[in-house]
Amino acid sequence: MGRWQPDSRGRLQEAALALYSERGFDQTTAAQIADRAGLTERTFFRYFADKREVLFGGSAVLKERIVAGVNAASPKDGPLDAVAAGLAAAADMLGESRRDLSGQRHTVIAANPELRERELAKLADYAAAIAAALRERGVREPQATLAAEAGVAVLRVAVQRWATGADKRELPAVMSDSVAELRALTSRR
Amino acid sequence: MGRWQPDSRGRLQEAALALYSERGFDQTTAAQIADRAGLTERTFFRYFADKREVLFGGSAVLKERIVAGVNAASPKDGPLDAVAAGLAAAADMLGESRRDLSGQRHTVIAANPELRERELAKLADYAAAIAAALRERGVREPQATLAAEAGVAVLRVAVQRWATGADKRELPAVMSDSVAELRALTSRR
Repeated sequence: MGRWQPDSRGRLQEAALALYSERGFDQTTAAQIADRAGLTERTFFRYFADKREVLFGGSAVLKERIVAGVNAASPKDGPLDAVAAGLAAAADMLGESRRDLSGQRHTVIAANPELRERELAKLADYAAAIAAALRERGVREPQATLAAEAGVAVLRVAVQRWATGADKRELPAVMSDSVAELRALTSRR
Repeated sequence: MGRWQPDSRGRLQEAALALYSERGFDQTTAAQIADRAGLTERTFFRYFADKREVLFGGSAVLKERIVAGVNAASPKDGPLDAVAAGLAAAADMLGESRRDLSGQRHTVIAANPELRERELAKLADYAAAIAAALRERGVREPQATLAAEAGVAVLRVAVQRWATGADKRELPAVMSDSVAELRALTSRR
């Protein structure tokens, strides 16, 4: 959903999210999305494998960015600092999206059990990738998995607060603040 | 899977986990489970609504125990201490199960995408319940959700380490150690 995407893709995405919000994900067809966007169904399938990919299409790239962020952290950084670097990279990428569309995406997923499960599976996949990157840095278990899971919790909370407008600031600020909240939380006795 | 359960239930559970491990969850029928346990299919359905409930049957009770643990924490305790109290209650309950059966359960779920999604949905449900209990205690967002999600990450990691035998100690010890690992992780810069 970044600025670099061609217009047809963006129009299809906007049309899809509007229809998913109005009539529900299950009740929307690819043909209806294409129609709303003023494009053909064939064009829809040139950009998306199916209706779900409109919601989950960017996840492989996002995972790569997060892992690259973790890997780019200084060797001196502790596990949570490395995770925070990955989250900052995620915030830079996701923050390029329109907040209103991200908010619609959030609402659509929350309303559909199957989509919620897919979203959770995606987040678990991020956590596994982050944990693997931390082990590469020499972090041992269970620290690697705990740091990765806590990081994904921060990602989820920050994106949700940003997308729903609960926090009005830009996503990178919301993200770094959420990391700070996690630190504050766990250091308090 | 506690000691209080009648023998037929335990035999069915043991038979089901053995069959799920040997031939896969999808390839196992309720009739085969009953047969392996030396019981009738009708008896199986007296204890379990379906094959999945053998794996997820205790989750409502566990959620109640966790929330009760959070609620029983001293009003002076911070969010993570309250979560730790809930996790200790979970460890007491889950630690009653046979470790070998819990390990089989873990392996069966890990091998099946649909079961993994169900497990993630269950954990997300625990996190939502913990966050709600923390808000009842006056914890604000996003701290409540962050503490809850981090707590569920600890639960998941601790149970996995215990069930797979990666940590040989009893579950309550593994759990409290995992909470300490989370604190150490996030307090380090």
